[in-house]
Amino acid sequence: MDRRSFLRTSALGGSAAAAATLAAPAYAQGKRTLTMVTTWPRGLAGVWDSVERFANNMTAATDGQITVEPKAAGELVGALEVFDAVTSGQADIYHGADYYFIGQHPSFAYFTAVPFGMTAPEIMTWYYGQDGMALHHELGEIFGIKSFIAGQTGAQGGGWFRNPINSADDIQGLKFRMPGLGGQVMAKLGASVQVLPGGEIYQALSTGALDATEWIGPWSDEKLGLQEIAKNYYPAGFHEPGAALSVACNLEVFNTLTPSQQKAFELSAADAHQHNYALFIANNGPALERLKSSGVQIQTFSDDIWEAFGRASQEVLAENMDDEIYAKIHNSAMNSMRSTSGWLSVSDSAYTTQRNRVLDAL
Amino acid sequence: MDRRSFLRTSALGGSAAAAATLAAPAYAQGKRTLTMVTTWPRGLAGVWDSVERFANNMTAATDGQITVEPKAAGELVGALEVFDAVTSGQADIYHGADYYFIGQHPSFAYFTAVPFGMTAPEIMTWYYGQDGMALHHELGEIFGIKSFIAGQTGAQGGGWFRNPINSADDIQGLKFRMPGLGGQVMAKLGASVQVLPGGEIYQALSTGALDATEWIGPWSDEKLGLQEIAKNYYPAGFHEPGAALSVACNLEVFNTLTPSQQKAFELSAADAHQHNYALFIANNGPALERLKSSGVQIQTFSDDIWEAFGRASQEVLAENMDDEIYAKIHNSAMNSMRSTSGWLSVSDSAYTTQRNRVLDAL
Repeated sequence: MDRRSFLRTSALGGSAAAAATLAAPAYAQGKRTLTMVTTWPRGLAGVWDSVERFANNMTAATDGQITVEPKAAGELVGALEVFDAVTSGQADIYHGADYYFIGQHPSFAYFTAVPFGMTAPEIMTWYYGQDGMALHHELGEIFGIKSFIAGQTGAQGGGWFRNPINSADDIQGLKFRMPGLGGQVMAKLGASVQVLPGGEIYQALSTGALDATEWIGPWSDEKLGLQEIAKNYYPAGFHEPGAALSVACNLEVFNTLTPSQQKAFELSAADAHQHNYALFIANNGPALERLKSSGVQIQTFSDDIWEAFGRASQEVLAENMDDEIYAKIHNSAMNSMRSTSGWLSVSDSAYTTQRNRVLDAL
Repeated sequence: MDRRSFLRTSALGGSAAAAATLAAPAYAQGKRTLTMVTTWPRGLAGVWDSVERFANNMTAATDGQITVEPKAAGELVGALEVFDAVTSGQADIYHGADYYFIGQHPSFAYFTAVPFGMTAPEIMTWYYGQDGMALHHELGEIFGIKSFIAGQTGAQGGGWFRNPINSADDIQGLKFRMPGLGGQVMAKLGASVQVLPGGEIYQALSTGALDATEWIGPWSDEKLGLQEIAKNYYPAGFHEPGAALSVACNLEVFNTLTPSQQKAFELSAADAHQHNYALFIANNGPALERLKSSGVQIQTFSDDIWEAFGRASQEVLAENMDDEIYAKIHNSAMNSMRSTSGWLSVSDSAYTTQRNRVLDAL
């Protein structure tokens, strides 16, 4: 009997008569350690901060009743095995980017990032102010997990290119590293898409196995040293305009937490989301300045390239619309995005455009 | 002896010998109710949601050990008396907009909003990813409070005007409702600035006692019915580009909370900040559409008006720079804002501009 079966028996088992008598749910007693497998190398800048923030929050807020023990990718299971590890009960929690699990269900992409999708403020609005969190829970329940977003990189950069991209034609045959749905978009546009983990990008770019690559943003990319090889950096990209990271707890384990521990879990994740966003944004600005000083050329994609990105993105996102849950999540997210964007464009964006113009002139 | 003196004695009193023996701090035992006075009418849309979110978070996360009991303005003390109530020990916590307390110290403005200051994402970056929270604590400690931001309206609208404002000259003599530093800016530009609470705005506007007013944003303003009288709405304003709300706990009371209760306090506030931002943004978009449908004219200030706002804002913000703490907080906030804005303008903003353009054309 594995541990999960044991929990299932103790928490949910017993006769109907006993259940009728036992008014209170059976919570696990005493100090517990929950194992959290992750999709990340230990210490990876920014992403691992979110892992530690969540784990430390949980321990502090539960007065040490719950210790969350993070495992780097490969320590217990491989990066992409964390979903199965948690749904099977081998581990209690995973921390990762949910779009790694589009093989399990394509709508997991919406809880990290989709091409031509939401920015971080738009994700916050959908997730915390509208249906986002409830849909995340609804999707997770199918697989026996309780999911919360718990990290946020902000908008990811368009990438590093040996040579500037001047038109959509330049994407033809480009050996480009981009995972997930963004990679599918680039493939539609004729790129030779490759998926490499972070640790292999520098070498592939330096040997010419890659012509170009995206990674995260200036702060993270600078640490990989990509600026030493590819001198054209596109800060704005289409593929991950805001990328949330998630924690997901095995649902039976979650149900053995006391209500206050469950609340601590939710608050620890929400705090980690906001804090992690702040950390990435705080570090990206200074990193971009350093990159400029080191001779990197800051580039922007032309309008026709953006149009090609947009058309191909819509095609990729439409491919799963025959799935009921996918359609529900897609429509919810896209309707939210258009509404939020409508307000932010005439308020925040209009303001910052004028503020920056005026302050620069003063 | 009042309750606070009692706590002071029990928590901090005793002989040196006893203190040496007593390794652990003396935390209050058992269930407690903490009184939270607020600067708001009960149920005020958006703002009161933040009050309840924080209070409910605290009760749930502490397993009912702490109940936070919110009091509307006037129930225990008046709206602007909450600061003194908490610093004197009459109440345990306040929930309010810290810029109401610029009389106590001008730098409290930076923990709500300052003219030509930060948007909500910029505030998050400064507060959670850089020095903002630490500076809030440093400022609060002078007055014996522990402060956290715990609500966020997002960018507030430029306001409602009976007649369009076509140049800075049109501001001369304008009877305009705007509190705080924004009001000081408008006064510099020749407006006849008036400060009225929300409940009095509609009547003042309808009788002509006001020519124009700002309030919060489309969602909140619509509830006041301002669109029935003034038909020109300016969604973007200079005065509160992101407005945080705060909770502040009497420091001696805070120190009697156990470490896990203190962590719950911090997480409850952070969650309320993010959640409240989401709530305002989620509701502003649909409200703006309804206002448009009802015949409201959506207007933008011209470049020269923005320049006048900018110059006057810089003058107002410079007025307290001889105060050491003010200068430290001002410089920290403004340096952060410029750096964050530099990154966001080439990433998020560049992306959303292209995304919205392309999606509109598809």
